[in-house]
Amino acid sequence: MQVAVIGANGGIGRELLPRLADAGHDPVGVVRDESQFEAVRDRGGEPRLGDLEGDFDAALDGADAVVFTAGSGGSTGADKTLMVDLWGARRVVDACVDRGIDRFVMISSVGAGDPLAGPEPLRPYLVAKRCAADHLEQSSLDSTILRPTALTDAEGTGSVSLAADGLGGDTAEIPRADVAQTAVACLDTDRTVGETIRLTGGETPIERALRGGD
Amino acid sequence: MQVAVIGANGGIGRELLPRLADAGHDPVGVVRDESQFEAVRDRGGEPRLGDLEGDFDAALDGADAVVFTAGSGGSTGADKTLMVDLWGARRVVDACVDRGIDRFVMISSVGAGDPLAGPEPLRPYLVAKRCAADHLEQSSLDSTILRPTALTDAEGTGSVSLAADGLGGDTAEIPRADVAQTAVACLDTDRTVGETIRLTGGETPIERALRGGD
Repeated sequence: MQVAVIGANGGIGRELLPRLADAGHDPVGVVRDESQFEAVRDRGGEPRLGDLEGDFDAALDGADAVVFTAGSGGSTGADKTLMVDLWGARRVVDACVDRGIDRFVMISSVGAGDPLAGPEPLRPYLVAKRCAADHLEQSSLDSTILRPTALTDAEGTGSVSLAADGLGGDTAEIPRADVAQTAVACLDTDRTVGETIRLTGGETPIERALRGGD
Repeated sequence: MQVAVIGANGGIGRELLPRLADAGHDPVGVVRDESQFEAVRDRGGEPRLGDLEGDFDAALDGADAVVFTAGSGGSTGADKTLMVDLWGARRVVDACVDRGIDRFVMISSVGAGDPLAGPEPLRPYLVAKRCAADHLEQSSLDSTILRPTALTDAEGTGSVSLAADGLGGDTAEIPRADVAQTAVACLDTDRTVGETIRLTGGETPIERALRGGD
């Protein structure tokens, strides 16, 4: 499949590109700026321009699936959270509906299920992530929503835990590489369609965890 | 009907209380702070405490309808826009569904239909208002969404224009008093259920405009 990665220059996006290629997909890396093209190519992706606050439509040409992992980042304000993490995500979902791109994996966040229960500084972000995920869930797309716990840059382990009841707690960490590997595996695991999956570091090999062996 | 006004101390909320009483309703004014109780009573409302970032559930006791006109205001940041205008509104909608309070009028904003077409500084606000209104529309409630143009503190005229194609343009103004009067009239006009109504200052008497005489 041709898989468009929205946010290809982010922490998880960078881990996604080579893993999609390894899994036999054609990764397209959608970034805001041509200066990021080289980095996308270096990781095995075809770079394309897309602006989540403007035009990104051509970046989806030919895509069979989308992995959304764009975020306005921690250094911008809640205004960008509204425009990118929420409205940008909604617009990409709507564009996929319009174009018949049926498969959509969204990287959300632990805590998005109940934003007011989260730490106060994170709550506005969690509201945005929740509302974006709700829009995807209510769409006609085949969606999977991943809610990883705190992200690290540690090397991937190839193993995770999907424990829905919070084994390990919300403070458990997970390497970005393992979140990316899980997103890739979701594309090839039909039973993840329609699911919202909490994701922490763990000891179950990713494919087995997604097949229900966790 | 007992009508709970969420945001009773805001510009439109203050105009709503006496107009609801004049129309034969029992207005309940929901405010964040007990220091605002006196002002609510002065305008004919029964004051109750409700915190849109915390607990507001008791404020809805006995309500038959809700008018939502709360907003975090222009002096706070987009983080409060996410927590109050969006998440607070969603939570009030959900509470009404849980309690069987079927009638809900939301004061939204012109431009919420296409936030990216709005002036850049307003866009995050328009995204929040749009997503809140979508949540209401997708609920089981009997909803009416009002999208007024720029608000003024001028005296009410009792007349408006509902021109959907933007007669007068998005820069046309409307007194808060006329927005409030329109919200009250919506409660008594079944044909406004399920409608999103653009509202500007105009020359058609409000009841007639809502009956389709505009």
